[in-house]
Amino acid sequence: MEYDYSFKEDVKIYDTDAQGIVHYSGYYRFFTDAMQEFMKFKGCNFPLLDENRWTVVLESNAKYLKSARLGDTLNTLLKVSLVSNKIIRFDFDIKREDDLICQGYVLHICIDKNTWKSTELPEKFIQDLTKRV
Amino acid sequence: MEYDYSFKEDVKIYDTDAQGIVHYSGYYRFFTDAMQEFMKFKGCNFPLLDENRWTVVLESNAKYLKSARLGDTLNTLLKVSLVSNKIIRFDFDIKREDDLICQGYVLHICIDKNTWKSTELPEKFIQDLTKRV
Amino acid sequence: MEYDYSFKEDVKIYDTDAQGIVHYSGYYRFFTDAMQEFMKFKGCNFPLLDENRWTVVLESNAKYLKSARLGDTLNTLLKVSLVSNKIIRFDFDIKREDDLICQGYVLHICIDKNTWKSTELPEKFIQDLTKRV
Amino acid sequence: MEYDYSFKEDVKIYDTDAQGIVHYSGYYRFFTDAMQEFMKFKGCNFPLLDENRWTVVLESNAKYLKSARLGDTLNTLLKVSLVSNKIIRFDFDIKREDDLICQGYVLHICIDKNTWKSTELPEKFIQDLTKRV
Repeated sequence: MEYDYSFKEDVKIYDTDAQGIVHYSGYYRFFTDAMQEFMKFKGCNFPLLDENRWTVVLESNAKYLKSARLGDTLNTLLKVSLVSNKIIRFDFDIKREDDLICQGYVLHICIDKNTWKSTELPEKFIQDLTKRV
Repeated sequence: MEYDYSFKEDVKIYDTDAQGIVHYSGYYRFFTDAMQEFMKFKGCNFPLLDENRWTVVLESNAKYLKSARLGDTLNTLLKVSLVSNKIIRFDFDIKREDDLICQGYVLHICIDKNTWKSTELPEKFIQDLTKRV
Repeated sequence: MEYDYSFKEDVKIYDTDAQGIVHYSGYYRFFTDAMQEFMKFKGCNFPLLDENRWTVVLESNAKYLKSARLGDTLNTLLKVSLVSNKIIRFDFDIKREDDLICQGYVLHICIDKNTWKSTELPEKFIQDLTKRV
Repeated sequence: MEYDYSFKEDVKIYDTDAQGIVHYSGYYRFFTDAMQEFMKFKGCNFPLLDENRWTVVLESNAKYLKSARLGDTLNTLLKVSLVSNKIIRFDFDIKREDDLICQGYVLHICIDKNTWKSTELPEKFIQDLTKRV
């Protein structure tokens, strides 16, 4: 997989649970951080795109291959795997050095926040996301 | 201390950390749950009081006396220790059976959500909170 | 789907985000709560099964059909959809009254906590999970 | 206040709640991140100090002066305000540029993790924390 962005952070004490490893839902925090940092890097507001348009999540998924522990430096690698008129999908690989720890995806749809109905993503947003730097 | 409400729940796996005990910030979850359940019991909306008025937090504090572990049933005992025109303070004792685990408080102020300036609590809200059942 | 258990709780303020709805990762909290309450009801320790055996998560998934808001009472319906020698899968439907809000699953594997290798689930645990009350 | 360390991060979507601002308990996440990053910078393990000694939290406190929103860059300024044989206290100022958003402290005690009784902090740990770079 070729990635569009990567974001490193250490496992924090609150990410861990009584098994001494990152709690399964904690990996969605890393996915979310990587999406937000990527969007900032792209100069896009997210998930509150503009005055009327938001993205909301349609599906999330994570597969856990190895466990991670307090203080481990995790590198969340992000790929924009799908952009259509209304939909964006991000795929993630979380690595600790060369070890693949977790893989997953988050699927978003664009809505009009006033009607809560699906609507088209802003054209500039699509352009910003898909242009290679 | 005489209490106004109590709310029991079990320590969840995500409340614990790599030390095997509830993470210090996790007790604020129990405080928050007890406040929300108390307000529901009183028939009050909280912290979004009405169309224009919200409460926001001015200060929070917790002292940790004993540790709690996965599956422990904790009883969060709540007292409305102060109600003035604009301010509400809740005091909490969290117990596991007779053991006092944590003590704390959360201080709220009423604001106008449009101007973000302090304003008076709704009269009915004050009455609902202070009347003894 | 026929369910094995159901657990009701209200959406808390910390489950919501700046969009005014439950954050996508928040639904995994409801899944986790339902699993823990179900296991308590069955008289099983979980996910720390016994002195040597733990379950850890292999995969998690959630599909979001409708949004939920502060104070909504959500009913998390749980089904043990698979139990093998080493694997347990839980499927979930989260409903607000008759509205289906979220669907998902969490797949666990049993490990020896000393070697961190997969091992067989305790026989009594499998029996407890699969017997109909 | 003269600070020992500062750590910047952006407010994430999961830090916010239905009021559109950082939830009051979310600031403890920023405190925790700053402590962990500071300790890493100092070359110290924390809060699992060594094979037998851990620090656990005795008290936490936060005062909220202004609200922070999604995407705000917050700078958590940390001071080691007290180190004794068994106790460490960290004080925090969280700023958004020159605006003071939140002030607080977290008080830790060193325990023997086997007996769960208070014990002396490792000498090297105290030296590492108190030497000025």
